[in-house]
Amino acid sequence: MKDMDGLMVPTFDDVIAAHERIAPHIHRTPVLTSSFLNRLTGAELFFKCENFQKAGAFKVRGASNAVFGLREDQLARGVATHSSGNHALSLSYAAGRRGIPCTVVMPRTAPQAKKDAVRGYGGTIVECEPSTTSREAVFAEVVAASGADFVHPYNDPRVIAGQATCSRELIEDVPGLDAVIAPIGGGGMVSGCCLTLSTLAPGVKIYAAEPEQADDAARSFRAGHIIADDAPVTVADGLKVPLKDLTWHFVSRHVTDILTASEQEIIDAMRLTWARMKIVIEPSCAVPLATILKNPEVFRGRRVGVIITGGNVDLDKLPWQKG
Amino acid sequence: MKDMDGLMVPTFDDVIAAHERIAPHIHRTPVLTSSFLNRLTGAELFFKCENFQKAGAFKVRGASNAVFGLREDQLARGVATHSSGNHALSLSYAAGRRGIPCTVVMPRTAPQAKKDAVRGYGGTIVECEPSTTSREAVFAEVVAASGADFVHPYNDPRVIAGQATCSRELIEDVPGLDAVIAPIGGGGMVSGCCLTLSTLAPGVKIYAAEPEQADDAARSFRAGHIIADDAPVTVADGLKVPLKDLTWHFVSRHVTDILTASEQEIIDAMRLTWARMKIVIEPSCAVPLATILKNPEVFRGRRVGVIITGGNVDLDKLPWQKG
Repeated sequence: MKDMDGLMVPTFDDVIAAHERIAPHIHRTPVLTSSFLNRLTGAELFFKCENFQKAGAFKVRGASNAVFGLREDQLARGVATHSSGNHALSLSYAAGRRGIPCTVVMPRTAPQAKKDAVRGYGGTIVECEPSTTSREAVFAEVVAASGADFVHPYNDPRVIAGQATCSRELIEDVPGLDAVIAPIGGGGMVSGCCLTLSTLAPGVKIYAAEPEQADDAARSFRAGHIIADDAPVTVADGLKVPLKDLTWHFVSRHVTDILTASEQEIIDAMRLTWARMKIVIEPSCAVPLATILKNPEVFRGRRVGVIITGGNVDLDKLPWQKG
Repeated sequence: MKDMDGLMVPTFDDVIAAHERIAPHIHRTPVLTSSFLNRLTGAELFFKCENFQKAGAFKVRGASNAVFGLREDQLARGVATHSSGNHALSLSYAAGRRGIPCTVVMPRTAPQAKKDAVRGYGGTIVECEPSTTSREAVFAEVVAASGADFVHPYNDPRVIAGQATCSRELIEDVPGLDAVIAPIGGGGMVSGCCLTLSTLAPGVKIYAAEPEQADDAARSFRAGHIIADDAPVTVADGLKVPLKDLTWHFVSRHVTDILTASEQEIIDAMRLTWARMKIVIEPSCAVPLATILKNPEVFRGRRVGVIITGGNVDLDKLPWQKG
């Protein structure tokens, strides 16, 4: 960790430490390929399958690094976060493995399946109204009452160092990559890729992929400063959150480009992945493939690592199904 | 191949030859595990993922062995079969790789997606009415006109030797298995397991899993002779066909038991696999897990190989969805 003008930035030493710390608690996920998708895109694609990860998403890497890095004297007070998605599940999972309390502030409108999963891992849910104001107020109360350690879903050096272990495994398993592409929401996974690749393989280009309808990171990237949207609407529900200072630090320095895809392109790429690769992936994970299909000239003839970020989907209601 | 009272039975030498012959045309599929399902069943389960196989199913092993085993003088006349399922896709795929004609007789009511897939691989479809009489009449005409080599979906020694390569890979990759379980329809995959395991690992028990609503193999097994049902109705649409003399030869000699599961148990096991393992599997592949969950005492504490036979599903209509 180094202090850069008050910003605590993780270094690659933190990634090495994170990887050792979390290894007993995560899967080293496989890398899959598809000759069909290679033919279709003209690229050689290597899919790093974090949908097979514990708790169903890469987020368990960062959450586990935070939880298993706590000092003994912090354990009794536990951890807390606000999230209605995979970070909530992941932090509950990691806290459960360490046997410490975990409180998650979630909008009361969050899907029942997500709430059940958090409780299944032993987490406690405190509900808020589905607004930023309510979430912040309720979360402040929770932390004040419990003294819990706040593990932010992405703007936390421990979390970014954890996520960075994913791209480290990818480049160890697939030599000679030309590029890596990952979906971008708050930028935790992409920052992890920046941290690892800028250290181990600075020649590998880093692309981020974002829904057109939640393209705040792409606009930030072009503007040169963070632009945050209030409430973007997209099927890729993991990608609605804005960049923050720490992820902006990495994204603004190391990303080659941020590409976008429409809702229909995302849904088509998701369905294509299910149909041809026979894997269950979330809408968010389909955004990279959608942008590769849309920008073939950028990737043709290249060896490209594609991060499949998670597989927690509502199986009763798939985005390509009517009604 | 040995002649047993007129029945041409494949031997393990045929399996070795098949494996060499088809290796360039198939995937060596991965074996996945799930700590969740291990906890749930009390067994250690090793899923051999043929849903990731070329053409989406194990059937490509037997079909490729038949096609790439043809003599030069047979090539121009090509191959033919009748199937509305994965064998049709697989034979078309293999014939396409070898550049020879492939004709598939299919009921006109077969799903459009299957017809499109056969044509996508270069196969020719000849439609028949959805009845055994029509299928046999039309198929006889096709073979008479073309002189094509008939590759039966399962009752063919070349096909069984090909399917047997699957369990050979499984026991090479997972040492110390106590049992292997696979779905049973016509018995091609199970016969392949019998052939391989009785030779390489005779201590490994072989279980077959079948829908209650299409339990002709289970009833045959208990009766000691083949019982064929006319038109069983089950969500596991790959498992409706009856045993034939060659598959009965293997099943009657080497299978420990044939277990059955209800339609709801199959659908629940399928959904559970999608939700927890994040893989797309067909209803047929869920029958083994359904029977393991139903008969925990048989499998508890055992290391069990589970053959996931295929992943070709209609993504618009999943069996747990209403309407």
